[in-house]
Amino acid sequence: MADQLPQRLKDWIDAKVFAQLATIEPDGQPQLSTMWVGYDGDDILMSTVVGRRKEQNMRRDPRVTVLVNNPATQYGYVEVRGTATLTEEGGRDLIDQFSETYRGVRPYPQDREGAVRVVVRITASRVRDYG
Amino acid sequence: MADQLPQRLKDWIDAKVFAQLATIEPDGQPQLSTMWVGYDGDDILMSTVVGRRKEQNMRRDPRVTVLVNNPATQYGYVEVRGTATLTEEGGRDLIDQFSETYRGVRPYPQDREGAVRVVVRITASRVRDYG
Repeated sequence: MADQLPQRLKDWIDAKVFAQLATIEPDGQPQLSTMWVGYDGDDILMSTVVGRRKEQNMRRDPRVTVLVNNPATQYGYVEVRGTATLTEEGGRDLIDQFSETYRGVRPYPQDREGAVRVVVRITASRVRDYG
Repeated sequence: MADQLPQRLKDWIDAKVFAQLATIEPDGQPQLSTMWVGYDGDDILMSTVVGRRKEQNMRRDPRVTVLVNNPATQYGYVEVRGTATLTEEGGRDLIDQFSETYRGVRPYPQDREGAVRVVVRITASRVRDYG
């Protein structure tokens, strides 16, 4: 069953915090990236590109873990374990929206020609809120 | 063979940045924590306590991944995959040193009585530096 996102995590995301995303490498070792992050209800949203390592990892094993730090103090964070669903629909719009939110630039100017943007929708299975 | 830490990662750590540590849960899903961080030559140093989940995870499977963000811009980060060695020797001194560095307080005041501090020494097997 899906778990809820704490309100303070949503507040941090509204304040344009970054998130760390952990995916699982083929050999089992975690792979880490720093990401732009949003939410839709109790799902976490991220953006990636078809063919990137993290995208390949999530297609093979959709279990991911996300960490967001309290941007005000750097102490305290929320860890979310969940499952990622990847869809191309809306992928271009999401990265443009992130680019506008984080950098005030729309459309997102940095993709190579032909890059296929993907929406990463993460449904939380377990949320831990560390003081 | 061990990989070297980039100089800019050492500079960020000298500037008292925080790091994210990923360990591997028994079921294979990554577990994430935000940590104080140091280095000794080309090893990354962290501190934890015997019995914590991350400590149990690293004893079962010592493969870890560390991410450190560029504190100046929040864009750009270094990802280090490596292997953790845990030792109790020097464990109390390391947390006291971190507490002094990050908070100006020595000794570290927040451990419960009887907490056994552990030095987490991470030898890098692969370092990726993202612009």
